[in-house]
Amino acid sequence: MQQPIPDRRSFVFLLRVLRGQAQVDFLPSAPAGLVFTVALCAAGWEYGVYGLCGTALGTATAQTLGVARDRVTTGLEGFNSCLVAVGFAAFLGADHLSTALLAAGGCMVVTVLTGAVGALLRPWHLPTLTLPYCLTASAMTIAAPGFTHAWHHGAGLAALARPAAGRTALTWTDLWHAFFANVAQIFFMPQWYVGALFLLGIFVADRRLGALACLGSAVGIVASWLLGAPATQIADGGMGYNAVLVTMALGGVFLATGGWSLAYAVTGAAAATILTSAAAALFAPSGGHTFTWPFVLTTLAFLVAVPAFPRLRKAGAPDLVPAERATPPAAAA
Amino acid sequence: MQQPIPDRRSFVFLLRVLRGQAQVDFLPSAPAGLVFTVALCAAGWEYGVYGLCGTALGTATAQTLGVARDRVTTGLEGFNSCLVAVGFAAFLGADHLSTALLAAGGCMVVTVLTGAVGALLRPWHLPTLTLPYCLTASAMTIAAPGFTHAWHHGAGLAALARPAAGRTALTWTDLWHAFFANVAQIFFMPQWYVGALFLLGIFVADRRLGALACLGSAVGIVASWLLGAPATQIADGGMGYNAVLVTMALGGVFLATGGWSLAYAVTGAAAATILTSAAAALFAPSGGHTFTWPFVLTTLAFLVAVPAFPRLRKAGAPDLVPAERATPPAAAA
Amino acid sequence: MQQPIPDRRSFVFLLRVLRGQAQVDFLPSAPAGLVFTVALCAAGWEYGVYGLCGTALGTATAQTLGVARDRVTTGLEGFNSCLVAVGFAAFLGADHLSTALLAAGGCMVVTVLTGAVGALLRPWHLPTLTLPYCLTASAMTIAAPGFTHAWHHGAGLAALARPAAGRTALTWTDLWHAFFANVAQIFFMPQWYVGALFLLGIFVADRRLGALACLGSAVGIVASWLLGAPATQIADGGMGYNAVLVTMALGGVFLATGGWSLAYAVTGAAAATILTSAAAALFAPSGGHTFTWPFVLTTLAFLVAVPAFPRLRKAGAPDLVPAERATPPAAAA
Repeated sequence: MQQPIPDRRSFVFLLRVLRGQAQVDFLPSAPAGLVFTVALCAAGWEYGVYGLCGTALGTATAQTLGVARDRVTTGLEGFNSCLVAVGFAAFLGADHLSTALLAAGGCMVVTVLTGAVGALLRPWHLPTLTLPYCLTASAMTIAAPGFTHAWHHGAGLAALARPAAGRTALTWTDLWHAFFANVAQIFFMPQWYVGALFLLGIFVADRRLGALACLGSAVGIVASWLLGAPATQIADGGMGYNAVLVTMALGGVFLATGGWSLAYAVTGAAAATILTSAAAALFAPSGGHTFTWPFVLTTLAFLVAVPAFPRLRKAGAPDLVPAERATPPAAAA
Repeated sequence: MQQPIPDRRSFVFLLRVLRGQAQVDFLPSAPAGLVFTVALCAAGWEYGVYGLCGTALGTATAQTLGVARDRVTTGLEGFNSCLVAVGFAAFLGADHLSTALLAAGGCMVVTVLTGAVGALLRPWHLPTLTLPYCLTASAMTIAAPGFTHAWHHGAGLAALARPAAGRTALTWTDLWHAFFANVAQIFFMPQWYVGALFLLGIFVADRRLGALACLGSAVGIVASWLLGAPATQIADGGMGYNAVLVTMALGGVFLATGGWSLAYAVTGAAAATILTSAAAALFAPSGGHTFTWPFVLTTLAFLVAVPAFPRLRKAGAPDLVPAERATPPAAAA
Repeated sequence: MQQPIPDRRSFVFLLRVLRGQAQVDFLPSAPAGLVFTVALCAAGWEYGVYGLCGTALGTATAQTLGVARDRVTTGLEGFNSCLVAVGFAAFLGADHLSTALLAAGGCMVVTVLTGAVGALLRPWHLPTLTLPYCLTASAMTIAAPGFTHAWHHGAGLAALARPAAGRTALTWTDLWHAFFANVAQIFFMPQWYVGALFLLGIFVADRRLGALACLGSAVGIVASWLLGAPATQIADGGMGYNAVLVTMALGGVFLATGGWSLAYAVTGAAAATILTSAAAALFAPSGGHTFTWPFVLTTLAFLVAVPAFPRLRKAGAPDLVPAERATPPAAAA
């Protein structure tokens, strides 16, 4: 008996959405996306719903606007809207109708921005990374206190940055909490067990990227500990999530894994840890958040410099092709 | 009897200056420029003088530096210097000699920046819009309090952004005041009757763009009312002027008017309304103003993304050609 | 007798390092670099050591990564790391081990950023100037208060900008102090005699550039005096060092010296003086410093606009070729 077409189309769309979830960590893998959804639900079922609906809305918007098919099938049109939806839920409050409506609008606008950033970076063959999401989420969270229907937190967050204070010595508990929370904070979640689930999802799809995520988390902890960041900030993952993403991107996703690229990735991860503090101070007076700006800026700078350094070699074609290649056309149809 | 050459040259120059005034709203039309000058004088005769002198100085600087002739004849070298001069008058005080001298310098520098922004955006075939003016006016107003001869307002404006407060319900008077003031605030003026004159000028030159300006003003009011912006801010046009410009630019100036481009323009206008609040919060701690940054950033992002969306079609050639074509060469000679 | 190879290699490397010092002022000249080192030591021996070690580390990193040889031999890979090292010493405290380690890391990262900025600006044939250093130094100084092991100054520097106050009339001592200090502040030093030594170094290598530096310093003083900047700020060189660099860059390094380019350079120098105040107000709330951002932004904008103005002519090829040509291949081997 032939499978009815509508069901098949829904199933194909669901696969695209799950791949979109997984692309937050550079993985065009539906199983990883499934584990990521479980991880989001472990932090709060509403985050799981926001994540799925956001990815679905972004993917659908891209399809409606006629974006190139291979971008849609590999989930490259879903990860920015996933982060926008979860980010709006985390920072504006998941239980307000206004947040849901703004997140829906944000998921459509971020699709336009994905096209814009892609076109802007094309002359240098650079990937968009999460730059469209950073732009959308920063604009919305900075704008929100100016609108009484969007802001439900009383006083705004705008404040001058103050020097760090408090305990800097790390306990054993801080250490292993930080190790997992660094992976969870990519999705704004501070719980270690949520991070453990995300890490499991990465390993399910790609063991090499899983190892790089672990390396990045370790670099983030060591760098921020050496610099003397407050222990609570290290333990909840707030200092290290950019290092995780930078290490994955430079160590294996966009550069061929090897001694030189690993050294390059570790240098980038340490730089991103410093940028995490700089971004916090820069955004503080306007009430903005750091999001993944340090990851985006560090990775784009380190990638665009690659042609100047003959020791480094790009992985495959310049754009997100490794990810796209990992999805056989048959499965993506 | 043959017309004397000097008079004819003065008349040609005057036409260029009036077209420069009108190009603030994308119109290469001397009659519209004349109505705009009347509108500025209705807000205060000194603003009319600043506007005319600023446009003239910018146009003359471009001629002296040898800028391509079709840019000068269509007024494309005058609208940024017009806004710089009126902006300096509005924010530094029109009745100080220092303001006049700084405005003169600003009009020359903005001509250089027009060349710079044009060259920077050329690889993506993007228009400069009012970006040169935004750069010049932001730099000057943020720098001014550091100079005792340029700043006459006592304490500076630097302050942390505070959440919105006050009445959000709109009265009928708020509504129609906002509708016209949204057009006036493009030139920093909050009076509804000044906006009505500007709108008249747009309709004189191009009824389609006039309709788009009305649509944009309505979108700005609805979006900021739904979001819960303070009613006084909506009524004086401060929340909606970017929406007017975005709707004109995306709905008919740079994209071919149609269902998809109108939907695209309305989405952009709503995004620009949110960006208006974000820009205010971002500039607040350094004492800067929003100017037309939200319009510029939204329109450039939405335009550069167009090639990724096959449903959308650019109007004519990529640059400001529609405007340039509207001026027959004979009239411009 | 044949010269032993290791000694010769050390001597070649030392020449590269001294040229790197001198390239801060656009000079590929080892003698000028030697005088600059003496000038830094006159301000404090630790600054001389930081400068030499920083230039050496940046040059060595570039060699290790396989950067094109002519960039290394002419010192183009050393001047950003020189400024990074001296800047870290000046702003984080030269006598802390943490500063030395962070400066070493910064010198390596700035080499990557030099490659990145070079690639980003290539489509417009623009030089990197000191942009890589501005990025690195701004990120580090803004991030530093967030790290207890990097920050030893008690309270952070984040504060809202306040309008200028105090004496604006210049004494004769203010005037000649400012004239020399404007050259010294390029390296963050406020002493007039340090500036006199730097100026001597410039004249040793290139009398035309020396004259342009003097012109730029004068323009910076006149512009900030006319605008009413506080006399103490003018006297310590804080208002005029960007004008010195802009005048050298536009008046003779990247444009052919002539009437039009001198007028262009003086306009740029005045604009950079205003930007110096704007940058201070923009960075104040996050505790950042102005560094040479006004010079970099003004010069890049004025250079990228050049093709639009037929009256202006680039000097030789678009990149730093004049500098590179000045070093005969034999000496650089």
